[in-house]
Amino acid sequence: MPHWKLILSYDGTRFHGWQVQPGLATIQGILAQTLHHLTGETVLPQGSGRTDAGVHALAQVTSFSLEAGIPPENLQRALNRALPASIRILSAEIVPETFHARHSATGKTYEYRIFQRWFGPTETRVPQLPAETTERICPPFLAPYVWDCRWNLDPKPMQEAADLLVGTHDFTSFAAVDPDFTQRQKMEFPNTTKTLKISTIIHKNDQLIYTVSGSGFLHHMVRNIVGTLAEVGRKALIPQDIQRILEARDRSAAGPTAPAGGLFLQSVEYPQK
Amino acid sequence: MPHWKLILSYDGTRFHGWQVQPGLATIQGILAQTLHHLTGETVLPQGSGRTDAGVHALAQVTSFSLEAGIPPENLQRALNRALPASIRILSAEIVPETFHARHSATGKTYEYRIFQRWFGPTETRVPQLPAETTERICPPFLAPYVWDCRWNLDPKPMQEAADLLVGTHDFTSFAAVDPDFTQRQKMEFPNTTKTLKISTIIHKNDQLIYTVSGSGFLHHMVRNIVGTLAEVGRKALIPQDIQRILEARDRSAAGPTAPAGGLFLQSVEYPQK
Repeated sequence: MPHWKLILSYDGTRFHGWQVQPGLATIQGILAQTLHHLTGETVLPQGSGRTDAGVHALAQVTSFSLEAGIPPENLQRALNRALPASIRILSAEIVPETFHARHSATGKTYEYRIFQRWFGPTETRVPQLPAETTERICPPFLAPYVWDCRWNLDPKPMQEAADLLVGTHDFTSFAAVDPDFTQRQKMEFPNTTKTLKISTIIHKNDQLIYTVSGSGFLHHMVRNIVGTLAEVGRKALIPQDIQRILEARDRSAAGPTAPAGGLFLQSVEYPQK
Repeated sequence: MPHWKLILSYDGTRFHGWQVQPGLATIQGILAQTLHHLTGETVLPQGSGRTDAGVHALAQVTSFSLEAGIPPENLQRALNRALPASIRILSAEIVPETFHARHSATGKTYEYRIFQRWFGPTETRVPQLPAETTERICPPFLAPYVWDCRWNLDPKPMQEAADLLVGTHDFTSFAAVDPDFTQRQKMEFPNTTKTLKISTIIHKNDQLIYTVSGSGFLHHMVRNIVGTLAEVGRKALIPQDIQRILEARDRSAAGPTAPAGGLFLQSVEYPQK
C-alpha cells in the first residue's frame, strides 16, 4: 500500500485552519475530500502540525497511505486540478511506511511578516529611504499576509530580544492558555521545553520579517513571540525583559498574540535519508 | 460644500464589483456606508467607471460632495481606519465642484497579469531561466491576482497583435454582449470607437503583463482583448487576425473573456490643472 509524502502551500485566509472540523472549510478536510473524490478511498492526511485559521503555509508536509497505485506526477497534477487555487501541491512522492509528517519531523521553520507603516529615524538599515517620517499605507493585496502594525518598531532592540530566545528554554510564557487546547497540548507536548536554532529579524523593503526555526513549537508560540518582540520594538519592553518573561513560565508575562495573517509555515525538517 | 476627489486601491476578490447593489458587498456601497457612518451624510461616491466582480484597482478615482468641513488628511485616516483592509484610500483632496470622477476623465490605464506555467523554448526574453520545459505551479498567494493560464503563450506574436490595436478603432468585437449592459452601454457610450495609446506586453519573472491605455473602454473590453491575445499566444490565431476581428464588429469574432482576477485598474487620467 503506497505511502505518500506531499508538500503543499496554502493561503490560509479563508480557511478555518489545517485541522478537519465538521461543516467548516479546513485544509485537511478539503484535501481528504479531494483524495476521496479522486480515488474513492477514505483517508485523513496527517499534517506536520496544525496551522490556525488565517495562518499560511509555504511548505506544509502531509503523509497518508492509498490503496491505488498512482504515479506521483499524476497524483500531484490531479490534485492541483481538483483543489481550489488557494491550495497547491508542490511535490508528491512515495516514501517508506515509517514516514509520518508529524512524528518524523525534527524541526520547523516559520516566518512572520510585519508591515511597517513608518519611515522612521530608526530606519538605519535601509539608508535609501526618504528621511522624513511618513505613514505608509498597507496595500490591500498585502493585507492578508502581514500584520499592519500601527507602531513604529525599532528592529535593533527586537533583534537583541530575539537573540535571547535562541537555545533551549521552557516556553510556557509564550504558549496559548486556551483550556481546550491545553489538555490536548499536555498529551502531545509532554514538555514545554523547546530549542530554537534561529531567531532573526530582517528589514526588507516595507516589512520586518522574523524567521524562527526550532525543534518544535507550542500553540500560538510564534505569534506570542512576535507580539512580545513588537512590545520591545515600540519600547514598551526592553530586550532584557525576555529573560524575566521566560523565567515566569506564565503567559501573562509575555506580550499579546500577533495576528494570524502574518504567519507562514516556511518548512518542516526531517532527518536526512 | 466641499467637493472631494479620493484615489483608492482595492482587492476586488471578495467584492461584487464597484457598483452599489442591494444586499451585496460592493466597493461603492461600502464606501457610501463608511462615509455615512463617519459624517452622518448620505452620499453616493461616483467612480471613474465600474469594475466588475473580482477586478482590482491600484488607483480608482471617486468624487462626491460633503457638507462637513474635514481636513483631507483626517478624512483619509478616518476612512482607512473604518474601511476593511481590502480597500485603502491612497489620497484625499478637495477639488473644484466641476470635477467628476467619470465625466472629467480623459483616459484610463489597465494592467492584466497572466501567470505563465511554462518555461518554454519561446522564453527568449528571459535568458536566465532554465532551458528545460517544466510546469510552474501558481503560488496560492498569487492566484487571485493573475490568470493561471494553462497554455504556453508566446509573447512575441501577442505583442504583434497588441500593436494592431493601437490607434482609433471600433471595438464592438471586444465589447460584452450582455443584453442588460448593452442597453446601459448605449446610453453611456454613444459610440464604440475608442482610441488606444498603449498596448504592450512585457515578460516579468513568471508573468506576462499586458498594459493598455486609452480614451475609454467598453464593458469587458480589456478582458476580451487579453482573451484574444492569448489565442494568438497559443497559436490558435495569428496577429493579422486582429484586423479581421476589428472589422467584423461582432463579439463572436474575438477570443474568450479572460478571468476577472488578472485585471487591475492602474490609473485614471484627468486634464492637467
